[in-house]
Amino acid sequence: MNRKAIIGVMGPGEQATTNDLQNAYQLGYLIAQQGWVLLTGGRNVGVMEAASQGAKAAQGLTIGILPGNNTSGVSTAVDIAIVTDMGNARNNINVLSSDVVIACGMGAGTASEIALAIKSNKFVILLNDDLNSKDFFQKLAPKNIYIAHSVSDAITLTRNVLVNC
Amino acid sequence: MNRKAIIGVMGPGEQATTNDLQNAYQLGYLIAQQGWVLLTGGRNVGVMEAASQGAKAAQGLTIGILPGNNTSGVSTAVDIAIVTDMGNARNNINVLSSDVVIACGMGAGTASEIALAIKSNKFVILLNDDLNSKDFFQKLAPKNIYIAHSVSDAITLTRNVLVNC
Amino acid sequence: MNRKAIIGVMGPGEQATTNDLQNAYQLGYLIAQQGWVLLTGGRNVGVMEAASQGAKAAQGLTIGILPGNNTSGVSTAVDIAIVTDMGNARNNINVLSSDVVIACGMGAGTASEIALAIKSNKFVILLNDDLNSKDFFQKLAPKNIYIAHSVSDAITLTRNVLVNC
Amino acid sequence: MNRKAIIGVMGPGEQATTNDLQNAYQLGYLIAQQGWVLLTGGRNVGVMEAASQGAKAAQGLTIGILPGNNTSGVSTAVDIAIVTDMGNARNNINVLSSDVVIACGMGAGTASEIALAIKSNKFVILLNDDLNSKDFFQKLAPKNIYIAHSVSDAITLTRNVLVNC
Repeated sequence: MNRKAIIGVMGPGEQATTNDLQNAYQLGYLIAQQGWVLLTGGRNVGVMEAASQGAKAAQGLTIGILPGNNTSGVSTAVDIAIVTDMGNARNNINVLSSDVVIACGMGAGTASEIALAIKSNKFVILLNDDLNSKDFFQKLAPKNIYIAHSVSDAITLTRNVLVNC
Repeated sequence: MNRKAIIGVMGPGEQATTNDLQNAYQLGYLIAQQGWVLLTGGRNVGVMEAASQGAKAAQGLTIGILPGNNTSGVSTAVDIAIVTDMGNARNNINVLSSDVVIACGMGAGTASEIALAIKSNKFVILLNDDLNSKDFFQKLAPKNIYIAHSVSDAITLTRNVLVNC
Repeated sequence: MNRKAIIGVMGPGEQATTNDLQNAYQLGYLIAQQGWVLLTGGRNVGVMEAASQGAKAAQGLTIGILPGNNTSGVSTAVDIAIVTDMGNARNNINVLSSDVVIACGMGAGTASEIALAIKSNKFVILLNDDLNSKDFFQKLAPKNIYIAHSVSDAITLTRNVLVNC
Repeated sequence: MNRKAIIGVMGPGEQATTNDLQNAYQLGYLIAQQGWVLLTGGRNVGVMEAASQGAKAAQGLTIGILPGNNTSGVSTAVDIAIVTDMGNARNNINVLSSDVVIACGMGAGTASEIALAIKSNKFVILLNDDLNSKDFFQKLAPKNIYIAHSVSDAITLTRNVLVNC
């Protein structure tokens, strides 16, 4: 295919930690630098906002898959806003549309995206400090889950997955 | 409201264990005995099938929320088949339509349902042997997650939640 | 199958005419009398409300497929509320879950349901006074569209479709 | 907003006429020339394919909102493939994500998109030879429907709508 790879960065909105936000911004920046397209949940908070801003700082292309029925609350760093009006069910579109999913931080929405990604046999890279989540998801789907120890590690793992699939 | 309570029983399909199936059948039977309506993912395998058969054995009413675009593969024990054509995104409808969610066994689809239920602030009762899942989800949402140690325990917890909400 | 037939009655909400409401109530009543299950969009207005009330007056079973993320605004005559959080996209679930669709009255939502039903090769019975809609949909899908001249005519057509499919 | 306008071109797949295909290609070409983003249903047939190829011929950016659960069958002229696994319910996403909808040709899917667009108070430009469809939709929603008599007319109408909303 000629289409560019789409990398989904999923993570908490309002509940994101400072560390999550720093990681998300760097992920977005490096994803754009690789020439990949960034996909997030599109809202102007948390990991979605930080990743999108990072990608734009590196002149990347950004997609936001919004839960509501219009573009209110979309990040100013989203180039392409997809308006789903599906609430949290849009999380399934997030993962199906991503060639690789990076989970940056943890929360209920993020956990649903990891689980839905596994269910559709996608590869998911976990970048967070939550040991329970790593134990749980790695045991649930050892072939689909990779653990990243840093942002650059997540980018390296993403590149490896893209090359092999 | 005059509507009967709807109890969602979520669990693995093809990957369900013998223990999951026995628990699911009993859950369905006891849910019907309480006069509650059973809701499952509707397919004729695993926890969905066993719970639906249990509920019909006790003359209950059963709803199946199907992932495909027709009723092929529906359990013969489903009275009301809802055809969504949404694939795994129908998991969000499963939990939104349930007054209480009981997760019987564990798998990627079940994990997505627990996470989506938490995201919508629903109560989820975990009935399984997977310690990692209990550790993860209880820490993620201590107010939404209850641990059941047996089928009858799950029914008691369900009744308590219904009374208090 | 042992499942009862599900008949979807689709029509305007707030914009329903007095005639639409009378027809919808009678449709619901007669659908229940035949032993069929009634499915509507579930809200407490317009054709959805009237059809559901009619069906309950004849001790029928009623399903409501709601567009929002909870049961607020559900008709008191709905027995089984399915909560989709999909907005107007739930119209596709309405028609996929119905063995026959009866369009009672006309509006943008109703038109979308007729079109989606045709797209999935469902049978649709039109009961309304809008000549343009009949001209358009009959030409679009002559094999899928039936014109009813009265409520009892719609019930007869429904029975014929159920027997033949 | 800094986001570019997204123009949705909706029309038949396998059933598109030669005239529909010519119009769709030109629409895609001119949409890209204006600096707008093209959105279609993404498949490699009919109006979706022709419009996407036209837009790429003019170096435009193209989005495809796919009905299935992977990218099989996507047009080679789609830059950004959104994988919904929602079947025809994805038609609602098509119209919600478009600032203006152009219906090029007619069919059941296209009719559902026009109706869903009206329901969400979007502007729809009809470009086809089907008099019944014009009569029906114009009467249904006179404020939302514009009739285009040519491709260039459709582009002029689109520009006017974008300026005024």
